[in-house]
This record gives sequence, structure tokens and C-alpha cells, in this order.
Amino acid sequence: MPTNPAWVKALKPSGPQGSELLEQERSKSKLNIDQLADFLFTKQELDKRARILKILQADPVFDKSQNYFRGRTERMEAALARGKRLRQLSEKHGWDEREYHIANELLSEPGPYGLHAGMFLKTLKEQGTPEQHKLFLEKAERYEYIGCYAQTELGHGSNVRGLETTATWNAEDKTFTIHSPHLTASKWWIGSLGKTANHAAVMAQLIINGKSYGPHPFVVQIRDLKTHKTLENIHVGDIGPKFGYNTMDNGFLLFNKVKIPHVNMLARFSGVDPKTSKYVRPANPSLIYGTLTYIRSTIVLQAGATLARGVTIATRYCAVRRQFQDRDAPPSEPGENQVLNYKMVQIRLLPLLAATFALHFTGRGMIALYEENQKRMASQRPSDESSRAPGPEETSPGPDLLADLHATSCALKSYSSTVAAEGLEVCRRAMGGHGYSSFAGVGSWYADYLPTVTWEGDNYMLTQQVSRYLLKSARAVLKGNVQDNDTHRILSIYLKRQDMGAAFDVLGEDAEIVDAFAWRVAHLTFEALRHRDEDKKSWNSLLVDFYRLSKAHAQYMVVKNFHDALFKEEATKKELDSDTIELLKKLYRLFALNTLEQEASEFFSSQATTIRQITLARTKAVMTLLDEIRPHAVRLVDAWKFPDWLLDSSLGRYDGKVYEDMFHRASELNPMNSITFDPDPNSKVLFRQDDRQDLRSKL
Amino acid sequence: MPTNPAWVKALKPSGPQGSELLEQERSKSKLNIDQLADFLFTKQELDKRARILKILQADPVFDKSQNYFRGRTERMEAALARGKRLRQLSEKHGWDEREYHIANELLSEPGPYGLHAGMFLKTLKEQGTPEQHKLFLEKAERYEYIGCYAQTELGHGSNVRGLETTATWNAEDKTFTIHSPHLTASKWWIGSLGKTANHAAVMAQLIINGKSYGPHPFVVQIRDLKTHKTLENIHVGDIGPKFGYNTMDNGFLLFNKVKIPHVNMLARFSGVDPKTSKYVRPANPSLIYGTLTYIRSTIVLQAGATLARGVTIATRYCAVRRQFQDRDAPPSEPGENQVLNYKMVQIRLLPLLAATFALHFTGRGMIALYEENQKRMASQRPSDESSRAPGPEETSPGPDLLADLHATSCALKSYSSTVAAEGLEVCRRAMGGHGYSSFAGVGSWYADYLPTVTWEGDNYMLTQQVSRYLLKSARAVLKGNVQDNDTHRILSIYLKRQDMGAAFDVLGEDAEIVDAFAWRVAHLTFEALRHRDEDKKSWNSLLVDFYRLSKAHAQYMVVKNFHDALFKEEATKKELDSDTIELLKKLYRLFALNTLEQEASEFFSSQATTIRQITLARTKAVMTLLDEIRPHAVRLVDAWKFPDWLLDSSLGRYDGKVYEDMFHRASELNPMNSITFDPDPNSKVLFRQDDRQDLRSKL
Repeated sequence: MPTNPAWVKALKPSGPQGSELLEQERSKSKLNIDQLADFLFTKQELDKRARILKILQADPVFDKSQNYFRGRTERMEAALARGKRLRQLSEKHGWDEREYHIANELLSEPGPYGLHAGMFLKTLKEQGTPEQHKLFLEKAERYEYIGCYAQTELGHGSNVRGLETTATWNAEDKTFTIHSPHLTASKWWIGSLGKTANHAAVMAQLIINGKSYGPHPFVVQIRDLKTHKTLENIHVGDIGPKFGYNTMDNGFLLFNKVKIPHVNMLARFSGVDPKTSKYVRPANPSLIYGTLTYIRSTIVLQAGATLARGVTIATRYCAVRRQFQDRDAPPSEPGENQVLNYKMVQIRLLPLLAATFALHFTGRGMIALYEENQKRMASQRPSDESSRAPGPEETSPGPDLLADLHATSCALKSYSSTVAAEGLEVCRRAMGGHGYSSFAGVGSWYADYLPTVTWEGDNYMLTQQVSRYLLKSARAVLKGNVQDNDTHRILSIYLKRQDMGAAFDVLGEDAEIVDAFAWRVAHLTFEALRHRDEDKKSWNSLLVDFYRLSKAHAQYMVVKNFHDALFKEEATKKELDSDTIELLKKLYRLFALNTLEQEASEFFSSQATTIRQITLARTKAVMTLLDEIRPHAVRLVDAWKFPDWLLDSSLGRYDGKVYEDMFHRASELNPMNSITFDPDPNSKVLFRQDDRQDLRSKL
Repeated sequence: MPTNPAWVKALKPSGPQGSELLEQERSKSKLNIDQLADFLFTKQELDKRARILKILQADPVFDKSQNYFRGRTERMEAALARGKRLRQLSEKHGWDEREYHIANELLSEPGPYGLHAGMFLKTLKEQGTPEQHKLFLEKAERYEYIGCYAQTELGHGSNVRGLETTATWNAEDKTFTIHSPHLTASKWWIGSLGKTANHAAVMAQLIINGKSYGPHPFVVQIRDLKTHKTLENIHVGDIGPKFGYNTMDNGFLLFNKVKIPHVNMLARFSGVDPKTSKYVRPANPSLIYGTLTYIRSTIVLQAGATLARGVTIATRYCAVRRQFQDRDAPPSEPGENQVLNYKMVQIRLLPLLAATFALHFTGRGMIALYEENQKRMASQRPSDESSRAPGPEETSPGPDLLADLHATSCALKSYSSTVAAEGLEVCRRAMGGHGYSSFAGVGSWYADYLPTVTWEGDNYMLTQQVSRYLLKSARAVLKGNVQDNDTHRILSIYLKRQDMGAAFDVLGEDAEIVDAFAWRVAHLTFEALRHRDEDKKSWNSLLVDFYRLSKAHAQYMVVKNFHDALFKEEATKKELDSDTIELLKKLYRLFALNTLEQEASEFFSSQATTIRQITLARTKAVMTLLDEIRPHAVRLVDAWKFPDWLLDSSLGRYDGKVYEDMFHRASELNPMNSITFDPDPNSKVLFRQDDRQDLRSKL
């Protein structure tokens, strides 16, 4: 590695130093960071994090210093090596699932074991019989079998029923033939499949006697356990580089009439009777449905933390970075202004800072609701109707609370992951030119997060399910079938009051902001219902309205959850001092009023607010909140407690030494600076003269 | 490279084939693609492109097949090799500047000669004396000197006056000492500097007798011309990987008291008299000012083409990709629906398709205005006031048309590059999961384009200059000093009519849409003026309003330019048949009304339109336009005439063979698939067993 000459080593950034500026920031606010952090994550969790961080930092396999420089193959190799070491450490220290998860979060890159641990084990556990647990799960838990979950195909994503891979039952020898009839049947995007997995849980169309019974899961071995080479009549590999996620070996997989024994069809819920060759109907599969709801709820919680990482980096750097003087500054303050003092920067970053807390409390609320519901369900046997994953406008599954929870989780998944992804890019741009450097630590994080807007239900597709549910609820409420859930409640209130109109004091009463958001949802719901049921508009022509409706619903839920966490929950009052609570309430107002202003036209046209209120929210309330929150910005991001090692960011360093770190990475860690190029276009050498024989030989 | 087994080679995608679907698309519309393409680009230009494309495709140096797989260093090496070969071809075929530019566009990656050709030569030419041209420019034109333009520093971007690098005049030996007093003085982000340049045009604070005269340009040699090694007391290198632009060697540069002769200060406009050691004041530098305006105008034109590339790929793929059935489809149409038929996809893609044309015509209009103005200026001697790059609220430079043009170019640069960048990401997401693959060809294009939102004036910063100009114009108009330019015109109309109110027929009269956009600009201008001049609000507190104002102004200009190109220009009627003009008019309405709907709250509150009009625009007019434009979508993107070789995209292939191409790249071009990994966490080998000694040795 190159080293800096002595005269360069002697240079310091011009003052004031970043470290001084961040110290000043922290001294301007009295916010108790530890108290807030404990409230957000619990002390126990933070202690665990600190303990595991030490272990990882001590191990050279986890050295991050070359991460940003590596190409695809090297990154994959390093990621697999880290996966292995994590697994070894996990055994050595007896980590539980949570601790293993924390270690992965600290490492902060998708790893090639990700889908084995996340989906393969889960699928075996949930869909396998006890016999299959013995046969597959035990080996998989010991990582002798390493697997993936092979559902998506080259030609089929969201529409699972359209999958082309077939599993044909052979009555004569009690086997299934797994086959890929077309190129588009190739499994595609399957995490951990490209280079790592030796087994796959394959979703394939079950065919018995020429009749198709829809997609079912089958366990298929694809690579040799010793040589790691592909088995016969299987074609498997890595699908190539992606916009992000390049430490994961997403793979493709094709079968040429591969036979597997009867026991390889995961048969807990449905199967084929080997004696009669009859299909055995699914028993209690609404659990799967619940699982998706749970996954989406965790995405909401995670969206807050994902965004917080970008906000932490940008807030710290914008407190260190100084550009221009304030135009109205007195001559007594001649220095350049911290970028964070500019309103144009504040209006981009501080509402996102507020959003991190809003999403955190909403995610927590959703998971609590989910767990409550699981308990309820355990005592009720759900109806068979709830068996399939629901299509856009299917009848709603199971008990009503589940349906409500499902719809809300869809709306929130779509909204929160969009907010997080787009917010990260806002953070990156708020940092000016340096935001574009890999060392900023935001670009790669954004790129790795982006699939979340597409997977677990595409963010546009999902909104149809939300609207379907809201329309159904509106029909019920109109008929007088009002049930005991929040959706029915807000629709009923709207129906009762719509003629007299709303008059919400959104600028004076915190609770009435929630009411205004609810009103807008109800208004849009009945409007959409009129289009669908009275005007008989086509479903397709309403998709844009449905998207807006779902977004409105999600924003209502976030505002409501944030409000309730601060105003209604006893825990908040017990664990936080009143100054902290007051500050969080300001963040609540900022998030809510800024959202209201951004969606102004829907609040006008639904008459949830007046134009005057919106104007006041924008020009007065939001501007005042920015002023009030500004001094606490750095401490507020500190409360997220991201270790520097996790952030891996020059610009987001806790100590503010951003320029020293940028320079060190560029100058001393950058392998490009050990190479000399020949720039002369007239020289005979096109490539550089040392060891690139491989490239030159092609010419 | 791996090859597919025979049974895989025999597989085809399930029908209907992508090629059939695109054929159908093209047969549904009668749009004359060649006619429209000639109108957009001229036949001569398209012929040139075709001729150069053939030359590039025939040369293995330009083989793109490994582009997406390469790491940073390999990409840089390949990019430099291509730069050299381009230079050789340029000489061989006698290419002019335009042809060289076309070759670079077809190659479509930033190359390490980029800043030499773009900025170093330009700076020498424009700011050097005839003596300096002989000394530096001639060698630079022969690529003996390869240079860069070193302005930005680690600690200073937008604020050029804050630069820290010094050039101190030594009267005793008639030299300058170039020095970097702090780490933050390090030049940073300088294109072509990291590995390629042997010279730099360095912007440094000129100091004579202890007094600073602000930033001036100096030519400094930094590397040996033969060995390519760094010269003494200079520290130079590559700044490391970035979110995109990784085929460019953006560099850093520090000086430890490096002496250069007097002649190395570029002295056309200002200098130091070597005899008296007196500063020579700048002469006629408003040309520089004009240059920035020109660069921003080309960014507008380029924004249209940049976005068009993403829209081309997404539109073609969304015509090939099929997911789900239409919910209201009759049972006679059982197949899956083309994604492009869904309104939620149309509302994302078709307004962007309209935006590509809107930006194209606007960029063309701006460049024409600029050229007209240059001619005018050639006959007038501009005042000295126009000499410096203007700060946020400085007095406006030179003749009024130049000021108007400057403000408009700032507003349009900010707006159009934001639309293009964000539009590309919308295109990427509209393609679902496959949009995330590098083979989609959108992600890397987006990442390479992103710096445009920050450089040549940060998209947020610039809006202050726009608002400064609009406020100044409003003050003049209020005082009755109305001048002959469009800004004064629309402000005057507003003043005259504001009490009687506007009643624009935005849904019935195309010209009145333009009037409504103008009205909104005028309203926001006078509102901002009131805040600043009457309410005495601080500049900082108005930055958000200024951003909105600038955006409104840009949208007005785009709508106006698009309108005028279709309704007023004789060329349009001569070169296009009436069906094509009608179709373009629909695109105009879609762009304008969709923008109007997105900015609804400003149109309401300025009373440019009624709420009812916005609602009708959204639910009726825009939806109808989507239906009408949909059948022509594929032919409209075809008219942009992007060769497949340029797009380098599986999903955007002209022939629709998207799945075949995805599979071929993943399976047969992907070097990862020549490697076997050992996934066993209990094996002693962490990294793979072949040749990665370098990685393993670190552990």
C-alpha cells in the first residue's frame, strides 16, 4: 500500500476542526443520549451489540478497510469467508438467533449464508414433517446441507401461480420429476444459490396424472457435498453483478428431468398419497400468511434504522462541512457557515430524522399487534379460506384483525421502504460532492437496500391489496356491518361527519393531526369505492388512485403510531425525562406537518384542512420546528448508537475527523495508487505495462 | 468462460416471444420513426453516428461484454486503453470535435482523457496568451501534455473564493510558489488527475506582497513525461471508488512549495507584471460567464437524451414482460398481461417519455437563444461588472438578455438534471426485479449520471441565483422599469390581472397551459418578494421558497419551449407529418398536465387553476392521454435511435430477446461461474482454494 510522504503527514485540515465542531454541537444540547438509546433499543440489546462488536473487530476476516475497493469476485469470496467465520464464532460463543443477527447487522453486508439461515431453514421447519426434519433440517442446521429458497423465475416474479417449473408425480416409482420446460422457467434471483447452496427448496407446479395443483415446495440437491460441483442434469450459477447486493450470490437454476424421492416434497400442509397418487389438501396454512405479515412488519422497523444510518452520516457531516457565509450574518462572524444551518439542508434532513423515529415506533407497534394477534389466533382455529396468499381483490382471509393487520402491513411495507430508500438518496445529495464518494458510506448502503422496494411484495403491487381491503371495509360500513377495528372506526366517523365537514386544529392540537390524516384516508376510500361500484370503472383504471389511497393509509398509520407512542404509552413517560419527550413531540409535529404539506392537494380536496392551514404549516410551523430541532440534531442521531465500524463512513465519523479519514482512505488504502499508468496515446502499450497480460492478450 | 450444456442451449423462453411482442407493438402504430428521428437529430448526424458505430464495434478494445463484471482497476485500465484507441482512430479518420464526441457517446463511459479534452484544452485556449498557447496548448493538443482542471478542494466545492491553495509571487526570481497549506487544500474530485494527467491547470489564490487577489489559473507539471512518476514535492493520486464514474480517475493533489515560472500563470485576462510586481486587472472575462451558461444549456439537452435511454429500455421491457391477468379481462384472453398495459406502469413511464421530448426541445431552444445572444454580444462591449461568477444575490451581469438567459439556464440545469436522474430510477423500478440487475443497463447509467445534479452548480444552490434574478426583475417591474424580455412580460401580465383573477382553460386550450405556468411563477415571485422586502425575512429562511420558485420557473420554461416547438416553429410543420405533430402535442399535454397535477397545491394557492380543473386533469385528461399514447410508446422510443451497442442492456434490446440475453450474460459471460466455492463453514479453508493466496495470506 502507498504511504504519504512526511510533509503530507504533517498537514491538518484548516480550522475549525471537525472534531471541535461536533463537540460544540454536542455541547449545545442537553439531550440524554443514553436514556433515549435505551428506550429505543433496551440496554440489554445495546450491551449485546457492544460485546459482539469487540469480537468482530478483533478478527482480521472482518477487516473492512478494503471493502470499497474490491471487485465482485473478491467481495463474494470475502463475504463467504466472513459467513464461515461468523458461523464458527456463533458456535464458539453460543450465540442465539438474536446475537447471530446482531453480528450480521454489524458486519452490514448481505452474506452468502443469508438465505440458508433466513429462508431454507425456515421453510424446512415450517413446511416439513417430523420425518423430513430428521432427514433435511438437522443436517441443514449443522450446515452440512446449505440451502436456498428457489421460487422466483426468469419470467415470473410477483405472480407465483405463473411459475413454470414442474414437479410431476411418477406413480410407478414413487418419485417426482423436477423439470424446467422453458428458459423462462429458470429459477432466478435466488439468494445463496449462485455459488454456495448444495440444496434448494424449489417451488414447482405439482402435476399428478396430467393435472396441475399449483406451486408446492420440493427439496432438491443441486451440488456435490464434497467437490461442490454441480450434479448431473442441473445447470446452476451466479446471475451476475447487480446494482447492489454484490456480496450475495443470487443464482439461476435449471432442471433437466431430475428425479427426487417422494419424501422430498415438503408435506406438512399438503402432499401426494404415494399409495393412491391422490393429492392431499392443505390443512392449516394461514400461518404462512401470518409470516408474510410479520416479515413486512419487520421491514417497517428496519426501514427506520436503515434511514437513520444515512441521516446519522449526513447530519454529522453537514455539521462539519462549511460553505459560504450566511448572507445576513453580521460582520463579526466572518467564517463560513456550517451547512446544517442552511434551511435548504434542514428541510431535507430534519424531516428524515423525524421519519427515523416515526418508522421505529410504527414498526414496534406493528410487531406488538402481530404478536397479540398470534396469541389470539392460537386459541381460535382459522377458517380454511385463509389458506392462499391473496390476490389483488380476493376475499379477505381469516379473522378480521388479521385482515386489517395484513392490509396495514402491506401499506406500511410499501411506504416505509420507499421513504427509507429515497431518504437515503436525499441524505447522499445533501452532502454535496463528497456524498458521491464510496467513502461517504451511503451509496453502497442505499444500493444494497434498494431490493426492499421490490421484494416481499413490490411497492406498487402491494397497494392493490390495501385498497381491496379498504373498499371492502367501506362496503361493510355502508351496509352497517361495523366491526371493532380502526379502519371501520375512521370510515364510520367520516360517514357521520362528512356533511358538516371537518375542522381539525392541525396546528394547535397534536391529536387532531391524526384525525386529519384519518379523514383523508376515509375520503379517498369512499371516492375510490364510488368509482369502482357506482361508476363501474375498470380495476386497471383505478390503480393510480389505489396507490394514492394506500400511501395515505400508511401515512395515517405512521402518524398515529408515532403519536400514540409519545402521548399514550405509559412506558414513554416512565423511561424518558420530560425534555426528551417534548423534543420527540416536536419531531412528531415536524414529520406530520411536513408530510401534510407534501400531500397538500389531497388534504385540500378532501377538506381535511383548509388551504390557509397548509400555508401556515409550511411557512410558520415547519420553519419554527426546524429552528427548535436544529440544536439537538447531532445528539438525536447519536442516540441511534451506530458504531463507526458499522457505518464505515469517512463523513459520518463520530469524532468528526472526516477529511483526515477521506484522505487516508484515498491515499493510503487505495490500491489504484500502487499502479503507474502510461497515459500517452501514441505509445504502443494500451494497457499498463505490468502484470495485466490477461487483458492485453485479448487484443 | 463457462458454456451452457446442450439441453440448456435447446431451451427457449415460453411464448409469446419478446421478439413477437415488440413486432406487435411496432405494427400497432404508424408513427414514422425515421422522420421523427431526422427531425430530432438531423439525418446527417444519424449517418455520422452509424458510420462511427461500425468502426468502434469492429475494434476489440471497445468490446463491452466484460464491462459489468470488471472491478475498479480493470475498468480504469480498459477505459484508458479505449481513450488511447479513440485518439488514434480520431487521427486516422480525421474526426472533427463533433465526431470524436459522438464516438465517446457511443462508448458511453466517462474516460480518463475526458477532462483533458473538455477542460484542460479549453482553459489553455480561453485563458492563455498566444505565447502560452505555443508553450502549452500545442503540446496539449498533441497529447504530449495531458492535463486536468484542478479547482475543487477537499474542503471547498461550490464556494470558489474559499479555495486554500496559494500561488505566491516571488519578485526576486519571477516565479510563483504553489503551496497547499492544509490538508483541506488538497485538490479533490479532479477528473483525469488520479492516474492520467501529467499537467494541471491549478486554481490558486494569487498572493502578491502578502495580499490576496483571489483564485487564478496556473499551469503546473505534476508527473514525469516519460516515467509517469510523480514529481518531487507533489502528492497526487486517485481519490478512490465512487457511486459511479469509476472509469474516471478523479484525483487529489497537494503541493509542497512548488516553484513555477512566471509564464505558467494563464494571463489572457489578468496577471502579474514581472517588472513592477503589480497585479494586472481582468479585461474581458464575461466570456467565461457565458461559457457556464452554455454548459448548463447543453446539460438540459443532454438530460433529455439521458432520460430517453432509461425510458427506451423500460418501455421495451415492459412491453415484453407479462405479469398477471387484467382483473377485468374477458375469459377469452387468458394470457398474462403486458406490464405496459397497467395504468400504474403507464403513469410512471409515459410522462417520462413525454419529458424526454420536452427537455430535448427546451435544450435546443436554450442553445439557440445562447447563440443568438453571443452574436449580439460580439457587437457590444460588455461592462466590467460582468466579470466575476455571481454569488447568490449579486448584482446581475452585463446586458439584460444575458442575465435572463443565465437565470433560466440555472433553473433549467437544476430542474432537468433532477428530472433525468430521478426519472432513470423510476424507469429502473418500473422493470421490477430485473431492473436491479446490471444487465438491465440502467443502474450504472444512473450512477454515472448522478454527479450532474451536484456539479456545474449544485441543484439546490443554483436556485438562489434564479430567485435573485426574479426578485430583481419584480422590483424593476413594480417600479415601472419594464424591459423587453419574457420574465418582465409575465410579471407585468400578472400585476395587471391579479385582482380580476386568472381563468385559464388548461384543459381546452394548449396555449393557456403555458399561461397558467407563467401565472404561478409570477405569483410565487411576488410572494417571495413580499417576504424579503416587506416582511424583512432572512435570506436563509427563504431558501425553501426560492427552491420552489426556481422549480416553477423551470417548469414554465419547459412547458413553454415544448409548446412553442410544436405550435410556433415553421420547421416542425415542414419536417413532420400531421399525425406525428398531433402525437407530439399529446405528449406536450401529458407532460404539462401531469406536472400541473404533481404541483397541484401551488396551482391552487396561486389561483392559476381551480381545484376542479386539477381533479379533472388527473382523473380524466391524463388518463385519456395515457390510453392514446400507449399504442405508440415503443415506436416513440425507437425514434431516439439508440443502438443496442450503446444501450448495452438485456432488457432494452431492440429485438425483444431479453431473456435469452439475460441468460447468456449470466451463464456464459460471468467469470464468477468459472470458480468453485467451498461453502462448508467447518472446512479449514475460508477463501476458495485456487489462486487467492493474496487474500488468504492476510489472515
